[in-house]
Amino acid sequence: MTQTARFEVMTPDECRAELSSHAVGRIAVVVDGRPLIFPVNYAFSGSQIVFRSDPGTKLHAAIGKPVAFEIDSADSLFHDGWSVLVTGVAIEETEPNHVRALEQLPVRPWGPGPKSHWVCIRGGAISGRRLVHEHGGI
Amino acid sequence: MTQTARFEVMTPDECRAELSSHAVGRIAVVVDGRPLIFPVNYAFSGSQIVFRSDPGTKLHAAIGKPVAFEIDSADSLFHDGWSVLVTGVAIEETEPNHVRALEQLPVRPWGPGPKSHWVCIRGGAISGRRLVHEHGGI
Repeated sequence: MTQTARFEVMTPDECRAELSSHAVGRIAVVVDGRPLIFPVNYAFSGSQIVFRSDPGTKLHAAIGKPVAFEIDSADSLFHDGWSVLVTGVAIEETEPNHVRALEQLPVRPWGPGPKSHWVCIRGGAISGRRLVHEHGGI
Repeated sequence: MTQTARFEVMTPDECRAELSSHAVGRIAVVVDGRPLIFPVNYAFSGSQIVFRSDPGTKLHAAIGKPVAFEIDSADSLFHDGWSVLVTGVAIEETEPNHVRALEQLPVRPWGPGPKSHWVCIRGGAISGRRLVHEHGGI
């Protein structure tokens, strides 16, 4: 039996379903031309990624700039996996009514600090791909 | 009983131990000023991250440029977690003796394609942090 692997493009609905059912992802920002990656607790709401941040972090320095956000799953036994990538611009939400709405989201930072700044990734694209194994022949 | 969380800096040895005991991470590259994140199968050898790539990918476009590589673990039950970040420059290894040495590493891409290009992240910094919960009082 032969087995081949190929990548399958995930539909936008499949990507949104994964984004809705996870709570930890990673954001990449560019600082002085160099990329950095940070894990973040997030919520997916209204087609945007939402997370909380403290001031003064490198993350905060990314406000108003292009960022990438990624979640993935890898099964080391079966070598299966998928990943979803969201690209856009990180915007700090400060409008009081909007902030109150965001405060209803299930974004629970695990780390210390008040993390009173709400950040949304807006205007972006969502894409995903899944590794598929095909069995054939004998 | 009160419980507070704080981040603890991981020692270089702790970071290297985690890098040595995992096989899937994520690389961030900058394309046209925008960060992108891709999951990669990797090996950690001689203090550098090593992975394989096909030509023509966005990843390949990052050769010679600053990149970031990250692994993490998050326990959603106990809200524990750690992350290790490696920053450096992505270099393609083409010297035949060096490539033969890299071919001995346990880098097994799960996806399709020959992935005949060997990429190392060199000249970088390794850092890590761990979320620690402290119990105190009644």
